[in-house]
Amino acid sequence: MAVPAVVKLAEKFALIGDHWNPRIVGRYNGNEVRLVKVAGDFTWHSHAETDELFLVIDGDFEIEFRDGVARLAVGEMIVVPRGTEHRSRASKECLLLLMDREGEPNTGIDPSHMTRARLEAL
Amino acid sequence: MAVPAVVKLAEKFALIGDHWNPRIVGRYNGNEVRLVKVAGDFTWHSHAETDELFLVIDGDFEIEFRDGVARLAVGEMIVVPRGTEHRSRASKECLLLLMDREGEPNTGIDPSHMTRARLEAL
Repeated sequence: MAVPAVVKLAEKFALIGDHWNPRIVGRYNGNEVRLVKVAGDFTWHSHAETDELFLVIDGDFEIEFRDGVARLAVGEMIVVPRGTEHRSRASKECLLLLMDREGEPNTGIDPSHMTRARLEAL
Repeated sequence: MAVPAVVKLAEKFALIGDHWNPRIVGRYNGNEVRLVKVAGDFTWHSHAETDELFLVIDGDFEIEFRDGVARLAVGEMIVVPRGTEHRSRASKECLLLLMDREGEPNTGIDPSHMTRARLEAL
């Protein structure tokens, strides 16, 4: 088989011009590797059937939970367990690598004006 | 529930003093997030029932396949599909974030002197 593609994160991020709109850049064991630029506030939501992984590639990032706030800087990671209500925010633009199961809506089971119906692959 | 733990990759890497010995730093949807320092050559192997994700955190890294070589620098990612023979190498020390399904041996279905029987969690 052909050599698998090397994904250069910086090249992919350079193609992203909006916020809170994850792009799919890889697939792993039924999950999607997504890149997203974020700034400002997201809406409360949870994912019923998938954990969600966040790795900060650039900038600072916060996730609020019902019981407190996690603060992440570049090179820091968190896994939000399935079923856990959370909302994300970033005071300035922040670049994130995410993992979700394939096809998972960005707002999970809680649609809002932030929901992206279908994620583009880059 | 408690706020999920933030994993600071640099702090975890600072605890790793050997090569080719992945440490588990997170769990996501039945998979393990692993950190490893590598240098030199690994052995040919494949993983029958899991894809394997590599993200280069520092340094340069190569994966040889039967049909060619993938070369990765910092900020670059590759997913090796299940069943694909490969061997890794790094001319100098390289820091990697990996994902494998839970419990997957580092040498997959092809044990060698590089096999680590049980991976430590950090």
